[in-house]
Amino acid sequence: MSDTAVVETGDARVPVETLDTRTSRRRFLRNGGLAALSLGVASACKPSATKSPAVAQQGAAAGTAASQDTSSVASARANADAMDAMHEKGIKAFPAKTAGLGNQRLEPVMDKGVKVFELTAKKIQWETEPGHLVEAWAYNDQVPGPQIRVKEGERVRVILHNQLPESTAIHFHGLELPNDMDGVPFITQPPVKPGESFTYEFVVPNAGSNMYHSHHNSAKQVGLGLLGAFIVEPTVTTVNDHADVDEVLILNDGAHGYTFNGKSFPATQPLVAKLGQKLRIRFMNEGMMIHPMHLHGMHMTVIAKDGWPVPAPWKCDTLNVAPGERYDVMVNCNNPGTWAFHCHILQHAESDHGMFGMVTALVVQKDSKSIA
Amino acid sequence: MSDTAVVETGDARVPVETLDTRTSRRRFLRNGGLAALSLGVASACKPSATKSPAVAQQGAAAGTAASQDTSSVASARANADAMDAMHEKGIKAFPAKTAGLGNQRLEPVMDKGVKVFELTAKKIQWETEPGHLVEAWAYNDQVPGPQIRVKEGERVRVILHNQLPESTAIHFHGLELPNDMDGVPFITQPPVKPGESFTYEFVVPNAGSNMYHSHHNSAKQVGLGLLGAFIVEPTVTTVNDHADVDEVLILNDGAHGYTFNGKSFPATQPLVAKLGQKLRIRFMNEGMMIHPMHLHGMHMTVIAKDGWPVPAPWKCDTLNVAPGERYDVMVNCNNPGTWAFHCHILQHAESDHGMFGMVTALVVQKDSKSIA
Amino acid sequence: MSDTAVVETGDARVPVETLDTRTSRRRFLRNGGLAALSLGVASACKPSATKSPAVAQQGAAAGTAASQDTSSVASARANADAMDAMHEKGIKAFPAKTAGLGNQRLEPVMDKGVKVFELTAKKIQWETEPGHLVEAWAYNDQVPGPQIRVKEGERVRVILHNQLPESTAIHFHGLELPNDMDGVPFITQPPVKPGESFTYEFVVPNAGSNMYHSHHNSAKQVGLGLLGAFIVEPTVTTVNDHADVDEVLILNDGAHGYTFNGKSFPATQPLVAKLGQKLRIRFMNEGMMIHPMHLHGMHMTVIAKDGWPVPAPWKCDTLNVAPGERYDVMVNCNNPGTWAFHCHILQHAESDHGMFGMVTALVVQKDSKSIA
Repeated sequence: MSDTAVVETGDARVPVETLDTRTSRRRFLRNGGLAALSLGVASACKPSATKSPAVAQQGAAAGTAASQDTSSVASARANADAMDAMHEKGIKAFPAKTAGLGNQRLEPVMDKGVKVFELTAKKIQWETEPGHLVEAWAYNDQVPGPQIRVKEGERVRVILHNQLPESTAIHFHGLELPNDMDGVPFITQPPVKPGESFTYEFVVPNAGSNMYHSHHNSAKQVGLGLLGAFIVEPTVTTVNDHADVDEVLILNDGAHGYTFNGKSFPATQPLVAKLGQKLRIRFMNEGMMIHPMHLHGMHMTVIAKDGWPVPAPWKCDTLNVAPGERYDVMVNCNNPGTWAFHCHILQHAESDHGMFGMVTALVVQKDSKSIA
Repeated sequence: MSDTAVVETGDARVPVETLDTRTSRRRFLRNGGLAALSLGVASACKPSATKSPAVAQQGAAAGTAASQDTSSVASARANADAMDAMHEKGIKAFPAKTAGLGNQRLEPVMDKGVKVFELTAKKIQWETEPGHLVEAWAYNDQVPGPQIRVKEGERVRVILHNQLPESTAIHFHGLELPNDMDGVPFITQPPVKPGESFTYEFVVPNAGSNMYHSHHNSAKQVGLGLLGAFIVEPTVTTVNDHADVDEVLILNDGAHGYTFNGKSFPATQPLVAKLGQKLRIRFMNEGMMIHPMHLHGMHMTVIAKDGWPVPAPWKCDTLNVAPGERYDVMVNCNNPGTWAFHCHILQHAESDHGMFGMVTALVVQKDSKSIA
Repeated sequence: MSDTAVVETGDARVPVETLDTRTSRRRFLRNGGLAALSLGVASACKPSATKSPAVAQQGAAAGTAASQDTSSVASARANADAMDAMHEKGIKAFPAKTAGLGNQRLEPVMDKGVKVFELTAKKIQWETEPGHLVEAWAYNDQVPGPQIRVKEGERVRVILHNQLPESTAIHFHGLELPNDMDGVPFITQPPVKPGESFTYEFVVPNAGSNMYHSHHNSAKQVGLGLLGAFIVEPTVTTVNDHADVDEVLILNDGAHGYTFNGKSFPATQPLVAKLGQKLRIRFMNEGMMIHPMHLHGMHMTVIAKDGWPVPAPWKCDTLNVAPGERYDVMVNCNNPGTWAFHCHILQHAESDHGMFGMVTALVVQKDSKSIA
């Protein structure tokens, strides 16, 4: 991350300390010395500076240290520098600015004690990473759709306006609603045709990290972005409901590529906490593949599955989240620094051009002004 | 589901109430009013009724509400109606009749205290959905093979007759048998050649939801249907062993497509329970992919993994079942209605032609004559 | 396995009893009798010995028992014999000898109380099964790299020498290290260029079954073999830390195909324990796919996830391990014999040419000289 990079999380602008100032110069120089030593041995064996890069690479492929002569090392170094420059560029760009931000909390309008949320589904253009625009089908111009956050027992009305070229409907995934509010066309309701609207209204029956998404032509419609978080706070809270930081991380792998909350690295948003804070992360998989999420530096304690508290919280650093699943975890942010946080199916996170897709960072700040 | 659809579960014929009588007319009409309002605004902006559908669609692709004019809405509506008709047709056909029913309980013949089951493996034609015939390799003409259900400690003999064009063998997946009964050719027994038979005999060592399947050229043979449930009831029962309804749901994704108990939607069988009943579902994955099973309307409590009671039952609405795994769950059927129940890898469950593959329903009936 | 096959585990040579001596002759003869009986009926129906094999196969494909006449049975038998011979050959070759053995414990050099491990990363040729050589990128000429085994609280120095044609770096997956030891180029350190070295040094912060691997161009570099086990023994031990046998099983599915500890069946190494011993298996997935590991004959009790003890150990026979995950299980080796042990995504384990890839065996020996 560059000297001037800042971490934007809502209205907070968080300066990110550069690598240069954090890395131990002493260690790196010592390493350089060791490298020179080991290379000196190799060079002494086979000085053949006229070898072409291709020949040198064949030599390297022979799998012996002796084959690494001066020219092959120089050639490898040049190739490595070119590759590394691409990797560095991606990381320095993080968190990159893009148009649009999903998962923004939607404030309800009150109507005689009912919390009313309006969702308009329509086609938009969505920027998943700088300069990369994709067609999205979105609620209220956001991917993921706006975050709905209510409390167990509250009366809620969700009005869906369909401005899509297809029929649609909303399923409240995880909420144990009356059957006619379940959002499955031809089973629990008619499809909501293009140009029509439909009103869902119910008393919120159960707490937890739930989702809402299309349940009509859903492989396509959810893949294009018709999804969002539906968080229900419990009436009886526990220690976990008083996290210092509470984040939703929606995983997707549909038409928009590998995304966290609708964005691909380097446009993903970092999670930020201060040293000693408790961070709650609500993972939600709206994609078609598993994503084993790996956090560096600290473990995660799983406290809920599909919104239901687990009977015995368990620890992990790699949490396999399958399509449709949600997991709530707590992280005790006791290790300062900028920590890679990514899907461990490495093809979802890195190519020879650098990190992409399902990568973000957890930044644990020593104080309010700098990291680690 | 149509007015005349009936849910057949064994000998019970269960009338399924139609959507029309269940849907609130009042709500739908109110929705229509809202839709007209929102469309009126859009139409007023850009009246251009001469646009062709193609042009209209391009306009819609521009991603602005203003581009949705009268003709584009009409065009979208026509396209949506055509798509919806396909979706509706599939759901109205559910549960569709097909020839053949797998997982039927096989009654043993008693031989001096030994429960004897005969299984004949051979090629058959199998109807996975109406009119769709596939080659299957089946035990006793069923896919899945007949359900074997015995009790811990009983002596069991399974006689396998091989009428296939390949050798085969049976592995009792999950049973902790003596080594020579384990069913792995060249490791624990010779392959059973075409035309030959082989007899397995053992005292059932452990309780739980287990399976039997070919362990020879198994990627092909299991994929073609040589598999079945082997349920072992415990000698010491708990409350979970007295479920009101006890169902096996075998997931597969091999040569026959995405199936539940050998059938694809709309030919899958619904699960049916009365309001207030306890339903036990025994998931078994005999396929090559994970299938995160999502139940609408009620959560599932996981009580066993691979036949072993879990130390601390946990709740979920989406249960990720991997190849070879079994999970037993309990559902407290306290929410009346017809509930979608499907794999949440949406490509295994829905296309733009409607639902297919790994979709069924849990029907929770208010009384013995009608649903919800 | 052949009469002369031996199981090599380190310096122990374990004679493997042959199938022939273990199989009950009495049972097999009785089976032969049954087969003759059932075939006699079929043969009596349609004696037509002049049918060509092709015609016979078409007849068999018609899916009726009546089509299985004498010639089709003979033809099927010949085809089956040919297929079975391939299957037998693979199993008899197990455990096949190949050059190179990964996951060998690396003894540290002590430097003033610091345990020093040197890892040299370079290109090598690696034999995954007899005669099948692949390009590997390896630490110390091993795939997986050498096993590092230390104790919680010890001071450790890992010196990485990069003789690869690309930059690299080591991430200690699961260790909660200071940020600058986390091994992510451009986030926590500079990339280690070709020809350079880098030194990691830290006090081991947490116990458990962890891993080390490249975190630079990782989809490629880890796929090619830059990975290994980093086991941390706890300062306060429990009963599980005193297993009689303690094995690491690293799953991979990258450029080298489906492997256990860098080898494919029949070159995988069997796990060997004596009857009554407690076996601890540390599963680690360094691949890109899930691998549900199925053990025959005995169940596994999961005692740790990602190195962290689970609050309530649970039993299974099929354990789904996702990329980046580790699971520790205990097996009470109370069932003598040679037990198949494989990934239950059957395409990762068996083709019509026989078992391959992710297959090994657990051998539970009755005494020190023979099996079961």
